[in-house]
Amino acid sequence: MAARDGVSGEDSLIAHYFRPLATDPGAFGLIDDAALLKHSDNDIVVTTDAIVEGVHFLPDDPPDTIARKALRVNLSDIAAKGAEPAGFVLTLALREAKDEWLAPFARALGEDAASFGCPLLGGDTVSTSGPLMISVTAFGRVPPGKMIHRDGAKVGDSIVVTGTIGDAALGLRLLKGDVEGNMLDASSRDFLIRRYRVPQPRNAFAATIRDHASAAMDISDGLAGDLAKLCAASGKSAHIDLGAVPLSKSARAMLHAGVTDLATLVSGGDDYEVLCTIPENRWDSFEAASRTAGVPVTSIGRIVGGNTLPRFLDASGLPIALKRLSYSHF
Amino acid sequence: MAARDGVSGEDSLIAHYFRPLATDPGAFGLIDDAALLKHSDNDIVVTTDAIVEGVHFLPDDPPDTIARKALRVNLSDIAAKGAEPAGFVLTLALREAKDEWLAPFARALGEDAASFGCPLLGGDTVSTSGPLMISVTAFGRVPPGKMIHRDGAKVGDSIVVTGTIGDAALGLRLLKGDVEGNMLDASSRDFLIRRYRVPQPRNAFAATIRDHASAAMDISDGLAGDLAKLCAASGKSAHIDLGAVPLSKSARAMLHAGVTDLATLVSGGDDYEVLCTIPENRWDSFEAASRTAGVPVTSIGRIVGGNTLPRFLDASGLPIALKRLSYSHF
Repeated sequence: MAARDGVSGEDSLIAHYFRPLATDPGAFGLIDDAALLKHSDNDIVVTTDAIVEGVHFLPDDPPDTIARKALRVNLSDIAAKGAEPAGFVLTLALREAKDEWLAPFARALGEDAASFGCPLLGGDTVSTSGPLMISVTAFGRVPPGKMIHRDGAKVGDSIVVTGTIGDAALGLRLLKGDVEGNMLDASSRDFLIRRYRVPQPRNAFAATIRDHASAAMDISDGLAGDLAKLCAASGKSAHIDLGAVPLSKSARAMLHAGVTDLATLVSGGDDYEVLCTIPENRWDSFEAASRTAGVPVTSIGRIVGGNTLPRFLDASGLPIALKRLSYSHF
Repeated sequence: MAARDGVSGEDSLIAHYFRPLATDPGAFGLIDDAALLKHSDNDIVVTTDAIVEGVHFLPDDPPDTIARKALRVNLSDIAAKGAEPAGFVLTLALREAKDEWLAPFARALGEDAASFGCPLLGGDTVSTSGPLMISVTAFGRVPPGKMIHRDGAKVGDSIVVTGTIGDAALGLRLLKGDVEGNMLDASSRDFLIRRYRVPQPRNAFAATIRDHASAAMDISDGLAGDLAKLCAASGKSAHIDLGAVPLSKSARAMLHAGVTDLATLVSGGDDYEVLCTIPENRWDSFEAASRTAGVPVTSIGRIVGGNTLPRFLDASGLPIALKRLSYSHF
């Protein structure tokens, strides 16, 4: 990403909308071809996630929520790895350069970059005739060797999720008109839609994960599918108590009204909560640290031996059937 | 980028095609949510460039050349900053997952990753209904404080380019049928098209740039436009001797046949050569180092004072008019 007023439309677009966000010295005001992450004693965690119009956001979603989602889905990965945000680069594929879209997009992106301490370091802007796409590569710093992986879960570890599960999937279904939301008041409806559009990544939780978790990842494609991945990486399986899966008041209302079921909630995507495993002997200090961090955590089951898919057990202890574990693009 | 056979089409796609490329320990075999760049004494240079179907490559370009171009346009930035490749992450937006496209794409990407010493660290695969897009974020390592910037050019410095200029722009025009190539033999035609499809980034030249250049960047949007950016960043201007701009035999043939002109060649894009400025007192050792590195270099002019656009002077010392300086997406 490089900019010079008057050289081209692309460059002046970058200068006008994105240079104000490039506050980090390593961004060189976006006038160079590359950014710099200064050497330090920390390892650098790298994650990349793209969001695509019609898949991860809807064509009429507001540009400010699209910006926040693009950055936050990556911040969520940084948090789940136990790392502190260090910056990001952005690839923006646009059909046209309209101020009414770019201005709120850049403003919201800048607000999130500032509030999460994750400055824009560089990027690329390209034109497309197809769906908008925003690809972010984000960086985090973590003490050497302290990145938390997916593959460290041990038999007996508690399986923990932050926040509530399934809200975003319901928000998307409401937006698409796939389900009736009559039983919801306006604020419950808004809450679910907001959960789909603007994830709340758990960066305040990074140090707690780093200090206590044997394995962690963020839940982006649905709890069931993501837990299956964590278990596969760890060579383990899991038993989940479906009744313990934390649900919001809004999700509970829809569940009770019979317009959704638990299977849908645990296989819907876009939660951007943290899934982690906590060894028994770390539990008390983990719970205390979570309280201090102000992050709600719920133990929903245990890691068990074996290579089978995790089992989601209902009130009578019987596994429920999941039609699909998570979202797949292909 | 995370993969588990059988969990989803996306995951098995990643496991099948891309896990074999993830040879670096920091890639964790693509089974984690993030990659790791280990702490070291080096600064990390970060660059990101996307290529889009119909803009940076043509719909019927072979998948292997698309893969190479996606990585190489980024390797070119790493080289121009004086850094050594350290790895890359990939975002792939595809309409469908077809083996006849993905297999040669991944194979060529792996070959380039190996030959340039730039391993795949992670990525994201998404579906799109629009043009294919491949976004790469690449990393390079450079001794602390030694990244070469755009803004260091001084009055009197020689302006140098590697290789030859304008070939890729001619290759694109031949592919699109915009110009006649009758005067060319088949191998000249193939050469120009190859220059468009598969850039030859100057990574063998990185140490020479780092040791000698006052400013450097790669030429991606056209010599004229990119030189204007380097001059603007440095607060300088430039005089270029058009007759000194190095041209390939094929480009020269088209020039002599009157189907292109110099203005087109110096404002065409996709050269992926290095543009750098060399102080007078570094010239001899720079030339010797270039020879040792096996990289052809040509001095094409000098940095001068002022804030005007660089002037491209013809044989009579008069500036030629450039209709446009470089490609712009918007």
